[in-house]
Amino acid sequence: MNIGIIGIGCIGSSLARDIKAKSLGQVYLCDNNPDYLQKSQELGLGDQYFDKAEDLAKDCDIIFVCVPVTAIPLVIKSIAPYLKSGAIVTDVGSVKSFILEQVSGCMPDNAHYIPGHPITSGTVETGPEAGREGVFEGARYILTPPSDTSSEPIKTISNLLEGLGADILLLDPDKHDQLLGFTSHLSHVIAFSAMNSASKLSEKLGEDVTRYAGGSFKDLTRVAASDVTMWRDIFLCNKKHVRELYKGTSRNSVKYRCLEQRCCRIM
Amino acid sequence: MNIGIIGIGCIGSSLARDIKAKSLGQVYLCDNNPDYLQKSQELGLGDQYFDKAEDLAKDCDIIFVCVPVTAIPLVIKSIAPYLKSGAIVTDVGSVKSFILEQVSGCMPDNAHYIPGHPITSGTVETGPEAGREGVFEGARYILTPPSDTSSEPIKTISNLLEGLGADILLLDPDKHDQLLGFTSHLSHVIAFSAMNSASKLSEKLGEDVTRYAGGSFKDLTRVAASDVTMWRDIFLCNKKHVRELYKGTSRNSVKYRCLEQRCCRIM
Repeated sequence: MNIGIIGIGCIGSSLARDIKAKSLGQVYLCDNNPDYLQKSQELGLGDQYFDKAEDLAKDCDIIFVCVPVTAIPLVIKSIAPYLKSGAIVTDVGSVKSFILEQVSGCMPDNAHYIPGHPITSGTVETGPEAGREGVFEGARYILTPPSDTSSEPIKTISNLLEGLGADILLLDPDKHDQLLGFTSHLSHVIAFSAMNSASKLSEKLGEDVTRYAGGSFKDLTRVAASDVTMWRDIFLCNKKHVRELYKGTSRNSVKYRCLEQRCCRIM
Repeated sequence: MNIGIIGIGCIGSSLARDIKAKSLGQVYLCDNNPDYLQKSQELGLGDQYFDKAEDLAKDCDIIFVCVPVTAIPLVIKSIAPYLKSGAIVTDVGSVKSFILEQVSGCMPDNAHYIPGHPITSGTVETGPEAGREGVFEGARYILTPPSDTSSEPIKTISNLLEGLGADILLLDPDKHDQLLGFTSHLSHVIAFSAMNSASKLSEKLGEDVTRYAGGSFKDLTRVAASDVTMWRDIFLCNKKHVRELYKGTSRNSVKYRCLEQRCCRIM
């Protein structure tokens, strides 16, 4: 089986490592960042390397699209015309309804799109060096197949992911977005806004308030080192549920200030 | 030097471990929980053991009061009449102005009270087994001596703490409460309220939303396993700054719901 991975970041490179380590298929890697591609070759993460997603798509049975959420629909649309008959495309994006809406109607009849989302304890690093082996072992992995998806491709992708040790959960895409809006997006909104407030309070008091931070503040704000653009896009792509979860939060609250600064102006 | 520790919880037992390990003095331990006292003896944490704080106070040069914040003034008042001449009393409470107000005028003229607060990465466990050796190594340790404190006792307690590896910071008590209201109390309010909201959302959706939680939610809510009564007391004893930090947060927000449930009714 030829398994394509488009986007060699933390998740993409972790998938590559595990698929190779467990000999579950030939790993075809693609990234539009030449440095990532070269680094992946140096690390020996794949069997074949591509700088164009279309070229990778032609020969793969399963393709993981591991790029930021707003880029996922663009990549899927770009590879759709080149897919093999019976090919399965999946993604690892943190929002699902937005992507499903965007790619609606673009997949050929003889291929399948099964949205996915691994619930891993990710790092705030990115690139081929950020991934690690065994990250899916015991981790929940949500799949949100559209209701008209036949059972065979769901079984194929589930088997592959279970081979990596993942615990598969099938979920309605909108339900996924509501649940993850709470368990994941909430944590990031709070972490970004806490650091934002720390910066404002430091300015007001004329000293760095994080000097007085213990373990609880460090844990609270760990994910604030995550990629801001990536998370802004996630908030935007899940704005229905993010707004609902935070409605009633007044303009003066810590959380609102974050949302306002990072995404509300364009939401 | 005889060093007393009243309250053999996480911080108290960590102090005992380090003072013994570094041979900085004789360790006198006291707790009103007989199980904690017995466990401390079994672990060999101290040199002498007391079930009454007054008995311990008579022979100690330095006394650490390591009980919950609302109990600290009561303990200090109870031992004040028994202190040796030149004795130094300190505490490890997370709020400082409240305690200073409460103990005002109770210390004898020939003894000193120097409030303290170690900024450690504590655990959510408690009791003599919760402490560990080396916890103060490289950790910030805030002292908030009243302005009329002479320099000698400040030097004595600072030297002892530096002997444990701590990095001493002198701070105005109110400034301490403002800074820690942000860096520490904030994290706990958010963690408690996030778990509270998780519980409400789980009830609404008919399933446990924490099944879908990754590393970010786990970090966000780690400290929610802390002792609720202890933290309610900290919020109450620092209500001036906690209220100020959260003002403008509407009744519907996650944070407000927590504050309302846990302390606002009596604030």
